[in-house]
Amino acid sequence: MEFVLSKELIQENMLKILVEDDGHEGVSHVAGWLVRDMANVLGISPEIKSIKAAEELKEYVSDVLPVICVSADKGQLARALHEEGIINLDDIKDKRETYIFKVTELPDKEHKDASGNAEMIPALVIVGSDKRGTVYGMLHLSELLGVSPFTDWLDIKPKNLDNLILTDKDSLVSKEPSVRYRGFFINDEWPAFGNWCNRRFGGFNVKCYEHVFEMLLRLKGNYMWPAMWSSIFPDDGPGLASALLADKLGVVMGMSHHEPCLRQGEEYKYLRGPESIYGDAWDFRKNKEGITRFWEDGLKRGGHLENVITVGMRGEFDSTVLGKEATLGDNIELIRDVLKTQNELIRKYVNEDLTKVPRMLALYKEVEAFYYGDDKYKGLQGEPELDGVTLMLCDDNFGNLRTAPPIDERDHNGGWGMYYHMDYHGWPISHEWVNSNYLPKIWEQMTAAYEFGIRELWIVNVGDIFTNEYPLSFFMDLAYDYEKWGAANLEAPFIYTRNFVRTQFGELNDSYADEIYRLLLGYSRIASNRRPEAMNTDIYDPVWYGETDKLIKKCEEYMDMADKIYKNTGSYPFYELVYYPLMANLNVQKLWLYTGLNHLYAKLGAVDMAEKYAEIVNDCMLFDLELTDKLHTIHDGMWYGMGMSEHIGFNYWNEEECSFPTLYRGYRPNKPRIITCIPGTDRHTEGGFWTKSTLVLDAFLRPDTSVGSIRLCSIGAEKADFEIITDTSVIKLSETSGTLDKGEYADIEVRLDRSAINAGGTDCITYDITVKSPSGDSLIRVPVNMKDYSSLQKNTYVWCGLDYEGLSSAHYEVITDEKCLPLGYISIEASHYKNNGSDGDGCFKELREYGKTLSGMKAFPIIENYTPGKDAPYLEYGIYMEDEGEYTVDVYATPANPVYKDNLLRFGIQVLSGDNKSEIKLINTVADSYAVGDDNADWKQGVLDNIRISSYDGCFVKGYNDLRIYAADPGFVLQKIVIYKKDCEPAGSYLGPAETYRIQQVI
Amino acid sequence: MEFVLSKELIQENMLKILVEDDGHEGVSHVAGWLVRDMANVLGISPEIKSIKAAEELKEYVSDVLPVICVSADKGQLARALHEEGIINLDDIKDKRETYIFKVTELPDKEHKDASGNAEMIPALVIVGSDKRGTVYGMLHLSELLGVSPFTDWLDIKPKNLDNLILTDKDSLVSKEPSVRYRGFFINDEWPAFGNWCNRRFGGFNVKCYEHVFEMLLRLKGNYMWPAMWSSIFPDDGPGLASALLADKLGVVMGMSHHEPCLRQGEEYKYLRGPESIYGDAWDFRKNKEGITRFWEDGLKRGGHLENVITVGMRGEFDSTVLGKEATLGDNIELIRDVLKTQNELIRKYVNEDLTKVPRMLALYKEVEAFYYGDDKYKGLQGEPELDGVTLMLCDDNFGNLRTAPPIDERDHNGGWGMYYHMDYHGWPISHEWVNSNYLPKIWEQMTAAYEFGIRELWIVNVGDIFTNEYPLSFFMDLAYDYEKWGAANLEAPFIYTRNFVRTQFGELNDSYADEIYRLLLGYSRIASNRRPEAMNTDIYDPVWYGETDKLIKKCEEYMDMADKIYKNTGSYPFYELVYYPLMANLNVQKLWLYTGLNHLYAKLGAVDMAEKYAEIVNDCMLFDLELTDKLHTIHDGMWYGMGMSEHIGFNYWNEEECSFPTLYRGYRPNKPRIITCIPGTDRHTEGGFWTKSTLVLDAFLRPDTSVGSIRLCSIGAEKADFEIITDTSVIKLSETSGTLDKGEYADIEVRLDRSAINAGGTDCITYDITVKSPSGDSLIRVPVNMKDYSSLQKNTYVWCGLDYEGLSSAHYEVITDEKCLPLGYISIEASHYKNNGSDGDGCFKELREYGKTLSGMKAFPIIENYTPGKDAPYLEYGIYMEDEGEYTVDVYATPANPVYKDNLLRFGIQVLSGDNKSEIKLINTVADSYAVGDDNADWKQGVLDNIRISSYDGCFVKGYNDLRIYAADPGFVLQKIVIYKKDCEPAGSYLGPAETYRIQQVI
Repeated sequence: MEFVLSKELIQENMLKILVEDDGHEGVSHVAGWLVRDMANVLGISPEIKSIKAAEELKEYVSDVLPVICVSADKGQLARALHEEGIINLDDIKDKRETYIFKVTELPDKEHKDASGNAEMIPALVIVGSDKRGTVYGMLHLSELLGVSPFTDWLDIKPKNLDNLILTDKDSLVSKEPSVRYRGFFINDEWPAFGNWCNRRFGGFNVKCYEHVFEMLLRLKGNYMWPAMWSSIFPDDGPGLASALLADKLGVVMGMSHHEPCLRQGEEYKYLRGPESIYGDAWDFRKNKEGITRFWEDGLKRGGHLENVITVGMRGEFDSTVLGKEATLGDNIELIRDVLKTQNELIRKYVNEDLTKVPRMLALYKEVEAFYYGDDKYKGLQGEPELDGVTLMLCDDNFGNLRTAPPIDERDHNGGWGMYYHMDYHGWPISHEWVNSNYLPKIWEQMTAAYEFGIRELWIVNVGDIFTNEYPLSFFMDLAYDYEKWGAANLEAPFIYTRNFVRTQFGELNDSYADEIYRLLLGYSRIASNRRPEAMNTDIYDPVWYGETDKLIKKCEEYMDMADKIYKNTGSYPFYELVYYPLMANLNVQKLWLYTGLNHLYAKLGAVDMAEKYAEIVNDCMLFDLELTDKLHTIHDGMWYGMGMSEHIGFNYWNEEECSFPTLYRGYRPNKPRIITCIPGTDRHTEGGFWTKSTLVLDAFLRPDTSVGSIRLCSIGAEKADFEIITDTSVIKLSETSGTLDKGEYADIEVRLDRSAINAGGTDCITYDITVKSPSGDSLIRVPVNMKDYSSLQKNTYVWCGLDYEGLSSAHYEVITDEKCLPLGYISIEASHYKNNGSDGDGCFKELREYGKTLSGMKAFPIIENYTPGKDAPYLEYGIYMEDEGEYTVDVYATPANPVYKDNLLRFGIQVLSGDNKSEIKLINTVADSYAVGDDNADWKQGVLDNIRISSYDGCFVKGYNDLRIYAADPGFVLQKIVIYKKDCEPAGSYLGPAETYRIQQVI
Repeated sequence: MEFVLSKELIQENMLKILVEDDGHEGVSHVAGWLVRDMANVLGISPEIKSIKAAEELKEYVSDVLPVICVSADKGQLARALHEEGIINLDDIKDKRETYIFKVTELPDKEHKDASGNAEMIPALVIVGSDKRGTVYGMLHLSELLGVSPFTDWLDIKPKNLDNLILTDKDSLVSKEPSVRYRGFFINDEWPAFGNWCNRRFGGFNVKCYEHVFEMLLRLKGNYMWPAMWSSIFPDDGPGLASALLADKLGVVMGMSHHEPCLRQGEEYKYLRGPESIYGDAWDFRKNKEGITRFWEDGLKRGGHLENVITVGMRGEFDSTVLGKEATLGDNIELIRDVLKTQNELIRKYVNEDLTKVPRMLALYKEVEAFYYGDDKYKGLQGEPELDGVTLMLCDDNFGNLRTAPPIDERDHNGGWGMYYHMDYHGWPISHEWVNSNYLPKIWEQMTAAYEFGIRELWIVNVGDIFTNEYPLSFFMDLAYDYEKWGAANLEAPFIYTRNFVRTQFGELNDSYADEIYRLLLGYSRIASNRRPEAMNTDIYDPVWYGETDKLIKKCEEYMDMADKIYKNTGSYPFYELVYYPLMANLNVQKLWLYTGLNHLYAKLGAVDMAEKYAEIVNDCMLFDLELTDKLHTIHDGMWYGMGMSEHIGFNYWNEEECSFPTLYRGYRPNKPRIITCIPGTDRHTEGGFWTKSTLVLDAFLRPDTSVGSIRLCSIGAEKADFEIITDTSVIKLSETSGTLDKGEYADIEVRLDRSAINAGGTDCITYDITVKSPSGDSLIRVPVNMKDYSSLQKNTYVWCGLDYEGLSSAHYEVITDEKCLPLGYISIEASHYKNNGSDGDGCFKELREYGKTLSGMKAFPIIENYTPGKDAPYLEYGIYMEDEGEYTVDVYATPANPVYKDNLLRFGIQVLSGDNKSEIKLINTVADSYAVGDDNADWKQGVLDNIRISSYDGCFVKGYNDLRIYAADPGFVLQKIVIYKKDCEPAGSYLGPAETYRIQQVI
């Protein structure tokens, strides 16, 4: 069986979309989208025919091949098709938002075949269990036509086709969506979304929301919260127009967490007053009558539409409802009274049967405390007024769940919700400009939410929407089809991104799919490692571990690639979904990274190099303006307003008093002077006679390295000659003498011929390189690690920082951020374990490309509490030490929050040295005083830096040791481990010390 | 009686200078200087006539009026004059370096009067007790002729006179100099003195030293140490030429503290070697024979000349003699052996009678420890080999005495010496470029030295000499005439400076004496507060207490004044003694102060203002080069080489890797933005709605202040309008609205009409000023102190930082360096005591214009140890507190060093509140671990910052309190006291908080 959607059939008016007069209005409306989609794909629009009754259908199919779009819960056609055996409605009985999508045949009543049977006419039957089911079914057809969910929103044109041939294989009965309410929140809408909306639509009106709703439904969402900074959704349509359209299309409206009873926060501001019937105080105690009336009128206005009604009460402008003097008890009592009043109003104006009314209470910020109460005051937990109310939990505004439902409340009869943030306007630093969200992180957190039983409602704050389409789309699909994208599918973020590329970029795919895939993941990982507004000059270290250089290289590689693709293709979807957010994001990263280099070289006195970097910063500053300007004019100014938010150098949580970069400049010394630097470190000297700084080039302490480098910078106003000599023939230098003019530098390659070394059995040989320059003789000691590691197991990390004589004292003459000797530490990437074991059923799994450096390791099942040593999974890292003694182990983990009120987010740690096993120590990654909140320094640092470091002091023996990390509380994701002698930390950096040497192959 | 030195008499060859053939050769030599001086003053040179015997004189005086220059200890004339009754040699018998200067008459043997008596011919008779006595007498005549001691050295021409009439009143018998050996040390002579010397004289030879000796003798010095970085005084003359000239002129040569037996440090470097007779190790243990021979040959070479022979032994290059492994005992034993050997050699080659040979052992750096020994090892104290050896103590290289002679050794039979530094090449930061020494400090320390019994030898390191003439001259005069300039004369530095101006500047005096006086004291105080090499951008606070603005103003005022005088007069002595050192010094101060302002405004985002300051820094950088260039060409290039030393931004103790200033620049924000600042504080805000910073203008918390100010800086790229409103009519603003273009700023005067306030009996009224700007509304709270202080005693310091409601919480929104509330402290200048009392005979006296801010208070007699509460002088400060409670009292004192080995430098402190007296607490200003030395952080900070702060925590009552500071150990000089609530420090700054309000007049 085949159903062919072809240009020809439509041209001959033989293919039509049939909807039902009695069906959902929204279905007819969406049929219009389908027509538009077909026009875009096939180049021609089929006719929509609305028919009155089942009988008409029968007459009708004699003429045409129909695409029948009907719903089981409204009209008669679905039942008729069932009775005719065309479909089986039992497949979708009692299911939410499902549809039958069937390629079939209908009997042609007019024409019979030779044997008198009706001839069979091909048909495509889409029957929804309900309005949204039908709509999703219809949009499924769009998908099959190759239409992007963002076709309207981003003006993404699908590939042209001559026809689409559907066969039996395309028939399906859709699944029920995993999460009941799935949607997003337009928020923090000034200056970007607001200006855009005003210019393009003349306000936050139905013309605007029509586009938003279409995108939402195409993403298989069903729920949303409207913008609310300066607008009133149920009034601005004009009037109820937007709300009515939402209801027609099947979009369930909610309002933000602090806007109860279908009233927007802004409304009270306009309606209050000494003469107002609503009184003049947002105070349920002092103005109960006025506030109650305010809510009542809200429910009267919109209660007849499909909503999830926010209940509870918070203060104005996202603040606490009672003053600082109020006790917890006062607050709890107040909320209890509020709930009672609100439920009464809802019974009266919406539905006597409260169980039929979706209601939501946000356990957000201080409300969370009201829910749980404390020793003195019983919280709202178990409150009868909360029966059937969805309890909405939240992330910490930075993508980390704040809490999970208490274990014994997972089956709360109203279910649980999650308010997640891809955009945030608040402490410690807002992120609201362009997308800085990364799929692997969203996946890690939202799968946890689902596993913890948060399945009733998922809403995500997407700010201005624009540029967040990529993560939003993932969020919606994860909510719709958890089975496909959920915890069982570790590759979900990557497969999803590949699919996304396929869906959005039409013909670009053939040539650039791989590159675009890399760009999307690449830029968003960098942006989420440090969000643009929080980026600054002291974030990444300008020298240590080369982290700045490496990141600049990556940024420039991605920017070049994006630029090339855009230049070659001029693709507008590529511009919107990749080019603009990537360029905007990475340009800001570059801007600060180069500012860091400008400061570094200025402080060194290398003012010409500083100036070179300052010029690049200047280019970045200009490019930032250009990008916004172009965004505002491209595609007929479709996006005017977007990207307008301040985004450089926030000094407060919001843009107020934000600072552009400060650039340093200086003066060349009057004499010829050369600084000798060891790249990747802050070690440098001019070799003065009295200062006698001795540098260490530690590259060859790694047995796998035979190339190192030295940088010479000429900083003086005059030409400076240099000569480089070494005391050995096993070291070859790429240059041994030269002249550097002012501002010039030379990178000297230092190549070691290990095979030529006659170590004579010693563990370490040290060679000397001397740079002779007008400033003096800079001595560089070059220790070479000659140890034989052939007996070590694979993935053993080896201590290479040999503390040999002559190095330590000399080295300390250099002013450096290192507290340890060169390479005096071990740095481990979490996934480079020696063993992945378990004392129970759980096990650690790698989250690929997750976190700040390589990847993350997380215990599965993810919601379990494990007891280390009893039933916990563990990771075992091989450590080969040169010295016995006390070491500090820094454990780098995702800055997750403890999911329960016990404030525990622990892991276990243990050192095994031969037969000796240290006791397993449980380390809580958060302090007792830890709390998600604006005032908590640990939390702030965690969400800004995207890492949380816990330290453990333990003894290691000389030789083999195993370090075990055990899972304990849910939420722990290990990223990195750094080990060093107590009080001898390696130099700090944003990503932490680069991974050190490990045995990779055993010969 | 009259003796007239007149042009006419000389023209007619009737006035001659008579010296004796048998007299000191040096006297004849100096007669040449006298002739030169007369030529300069009178325009004509008299003849020098050397006569053979007394008889010849008799014949001679018939023709001419003689200036007779003879010595009591050599030749016959002095005795003859005595016998003739012309002079009385008993006046100078057994005295050192004294002279009779007598205007007299001699009988003319050829012409008799009517009664047959010889006619009397006027004569000037100068008879020295010894060679130097005669020389000083002759140079006294130069002084009377108005000739500067620097006439030759600085080419200072005296005023022209027609004649000089001497009368009886000019006759005198000079005093014996106060200090036996008085001289200076040319040191740290590269690049400046060295280049100068090479270019001008072709080396460190006798041509150079002739000028140096002349200056020394004109300053009434008698002793010097030659340059020694690269030269060998007894060899470079050429040969002994310099040494022989010194001996002839009466200059006693020494060598630096680590150059024993008339051998220079450099010599061994050249003479050592495997084949050398002196061996090849500067090691008295391993190469005793070679070293002994080295010394022996030194004594043979120069022992016959007048020397103070250095004994003892130190390592090469100013280092320790034995390695780090050696015990104190090893070192002491070594020095003992060395002394024995050296004394034997001296007996053999210089004088059998060691008591006739001036010898000196420097108790410098580690040698000090060898002298005192410890519990385990007896030191060199009392060592017989040190009989008759002068023990030379030292300052800490920064002008603070290290130690004084132990009380029971003050009468050590070799006496005590002092090695003082006006120039230093070493830790923590060298000071060797241009003069940064300040007379009041030198006076304070060197009078102490003298009082402690250090009277045998004073030597001062003057680096390149050039620019140190002013303090050097003071040092020499203090050593020569302690009775005049010493401890009894508190005004000495000021009177001396007035005299100095009179002596050096000839006719300039009439017009500019007062100004030059101010300039000399002014620039040298600023330079000594922070020496140029140690100046940097983070020294003075760019905003707090207006210290940067005030200092810039002072620098610019002095520079303008100097510039004006130089432009008007073109005076070369003014250029050398004032203009160049002042401009060079203050330009470097300005350079860094403006760099601080550049950084400040760049950090604020006021990039145009930052740029304005950067341009001034640039001007300073250029001016610094210009100054050196001009110095190198002026006056026929006489000073080529001087001023060459690096002097900007030392990062190490010496110039290696020094840094010129780093300047900041930035970008204007794209929007119009205005920052509101409170001058003199770091409080500032843009008035953003969310950041809600509230500023405090605290000027009117002082009851004596009725004018304050607000600064508005436009930082955005666009014009910004502002409006300033206030809620009261008692405040008048100089502007209430305006527009600032990019980069513009406005200082708004805030004038309070106290008389118009109706306080209604409250202690404090707070008004509000709101600055409305595009960035937001900046609220400035303006508290006005309305208390009635009329009942308080004069000089009571009143706590004005009222902690009234509404101020504290608001204020803390501002990011500030203050830990206290505005004006939440009391700052006292030491000389503003209420009572100056004593429980004994001593008393505190004010050292005017001493120290970092106003003045210093020091107990006299200065070498006493006092017991607070028993016999100690004390200062009582009146304090009126608003709150009872615990306060911290920071006591700012001169960074003196404990003078005895007990490491005590204490003062006593006590709070008296009504009848309650706290116990007197003795506070040691230095830690137990304190020591003068490169490794001691407290010492380093003290000498760089020129202050030492000790803290005391004590309770004060509400209302009246008296704070007493008692003298205890010698050395303590109080400069400032700052009192604040515990842990609520006022913002830090280089000079400390500016003085707060005190009752100055009681009505």
